[in-house]
Amino acid sequence: MQTNERDKAIGVFDSGIGGLTVVREIMRNIPNERIIYFGDTARLPYGSKSKDTVIGFSRQIVRFLQEQDVKAIVIACNTASAFALDTLQEEIDIPIIGVVKPGAKVACEATRNGRIGVIATKGTIGSGLYGNLIRRTLPNAKVFGQPCPLFVPLVEEGWRKDPITREVAQRYLVDLKENDIDTLILGCTHYPLLRSLVGELMGPQVTLVNPAYETALQLRNLLQEQGIASQEKPEGETPYKFFVSDAVESFKDFANSILPIDIARAQKVDIESY
Amino acid sequence: MQTNERDKAIGVFDSGIGGLTVVREIMRNIPNERIIYFGDTARLPYGSKSKDTVIGFSRQIVRFLQEQDVKAIVIACNTASAFALDTLQEEIDIPIIGVVKPGAKVACEATRNGRIGVIATKGTIGSGLYGNLIRRTLPNAKVFGQPCPLFVPLVEEGWRKDPITREVAQRYLVDLKENDIDTLILGCTHYPLLRSLVGELMGPQVTLVNPAYETALQLRNLLQEQGIASQEKPEGETPYKFFVSDAVESFKDFANSILPIDIARAQKVDIESY
Repeated sequence: MQTNERDKAIGVFDSGIGGLTVVREIMRNIPNERIIYFGDTARLPYGSKSKDTVIGFSRQIVRFLQEQDVKAIVIACNTASAFALDTLQEEIDIPIIGVVKPGAKVACEATRNGRIGVIATKGTIGSGLYGNLIRRTLPNAKVFGQPCPLFVPLVEEGWRKDPITREVAQRYLVDLKENDIDTLILGCTHYPLLRSLVGELMGPQVTLVNPAYETALQLRNLLQEQGIASQEKPEGETPYKFFVSDAVESFKDFANSILPIDIARAQKVDIESY
Repeated sequence: MQTNERDKAIGVFDSGIGGLTVVREIMRNIPNERIIYFGDTARLPYGSKSKDTVIGFSRQIVRFLQEQDVKAIVIACNTASAFALDTLQEEIDIPIIGVVKPGAKVACEATRNGRIGVIATKGTIGSGLYGNLIRRTLPNAKVFGQPCPLFVPLVEEGWRKDPITREVAQRYLVDLKENDIDTLILGCTHYPLLRSLVGELMGPQVTLVNPAYETALQLRNLLQEQGIASQEKPEGETPYKFFVSDAVESFKDFANSILPIDIARAQKVDIESY
C-alpha cells in the first residue's frame, strides 16, 4: 500500500524544545498537515557550537526523518538553519526550509528606516546569515546583531516574568535601542516566549518579527506550489508524533505548556546511530 | 617497547570546560603526572540531561581514554560522577574516581553542626548522591540541595563579577542561608569560579568545599597506594594533552584563562564513533 505524497507528514526538527513554537504555528496555520517532530534534547543547545558540529547533528536528524518518510522538512532552529540549510538542501531530494529566510524576508517588508535588529544565539549571529539575506533584498539596510545567550536558560528556569530577566534583557537590548532600529527579529525559537518583555522594552515603534509564524506561512505556500499539501484533516490516530534524543518526561511537560494539544507520548531515539 | 604503568597518563574528562578546574588542581598537587583531558564540548551541558544519556556519553569517552592507554581515570564532572561512576567502575579494570565522593568526604570532616548545603546542576541534585554519601558517614546530617542552572551560563557570559550574577546568586542561596548550614559544597566544576561571590554571600561562618581540590588529593593517594604514581617529572614533549568534541578555539581561550600553563593545541575527536 503506497502512501499518497500529500498524506505524508512534515518533518520538523530543533536542537530541543524551542522548535515547538514553530510546530504551534504550523498546527494553527496548516491544520491539515501531519507533523513528525524531533528534538535533540540529548545534545542541546546548538547555539554555542561550531558549524561543523551543527551540520553533523542536523544530517543525522534528517536521516531519521527521511526514514519516517516525511514529504518535506522544516529546520525549526535558527542556528541549524543558519549553519546547515544550504548543505542539507544539496544532499536530499525533498523540500527543506529553515526559519532564517522567512524571518529575514518579513523583516525587509516591515522596516521603514532600513535599520533592523536581530537577537539570537552566538552561532546564528556569528554566521551573519540574517544580515546577508536582508542586504540581498535591501542593499542599504543596516543590520545590528546581538547574541543573548542567557535568554534560553532564563526561560527554561521559568523566570520569564522575573525582574532578573528584565535586567538581563535591558542589558542585551540597550545597543539595539541606541541604534534606532524599527524592526527586531526574534532569531531564536525560545525568544517568542519573551515577546511581551522584549516588546515592552523596545517600545511600540519597533516591529517584532517572529520567524516561527513566517515559516509556517512559507511552508503552506511551498506545499501548495509543489502540489503536496494535504487536502483534508488527517483521520484516525494522532496526526502529531514527537521524538526526542533524551528525557521524554521533561519534554512532554514543556510541550504541553506551549502547544494547543496535549502530547500523550514522546519516543526516545538513539540519534547518534543515524 | 612497553610503557611502564607508572609513566602512563591520567585520563580526565568533563562535559566541557569546567573540568579544567580539576586539571588545575592535579597540575598543582601532583605535578609529576601526565594528563590526557577530554571535554565533550559538542554535547555539553550534562547537568540537565538524563542518567541514561550521561552514562552513554561517559562510556564513549572512557573508551576513547582507554585507547589513549591511560592508567587511571578521573570523572571531573559532578553530573557524570553522580550518574555514571558506579556503572563505569564495573565495566573497566583501571581505577576510576569521580568528584562527588571526595567532596562529600571533606564536607563531613568540615561540618560542625551537621547541616551541609550542596549547590550543583539539576542532574546532580536530583541524583541525591551527595546526600546519600554524606549520611553514610554522618547518619544524622541534614543535607540541603539547591540546583543553580544559571551559574554556568553566567560564568560563560563573562559576568562573574556582575550585579546580575550577584542577584541570581542571592536568589539561589537564600534557602541555604535560612537553613543555617555551616558547610557548602561547590558541586559543579564551574562553581569554584564563583567562589568569592558565594563566600561573601554565605558569610565567613560557612566553609566552602571545592571537590576539585579534594579529588586531586584522593587521586594522589590512590596512585601511591596502587604503586602507579609517576616517580619523576615527565620529560620531552608536553605532559598535558587536550581533546574536545567541538570548537577547539573557544576551548583553548577558556583553558588558557584558568590553567597555570598555556595550551598550544587541542585536538578534535569524533566521540560519537566510540
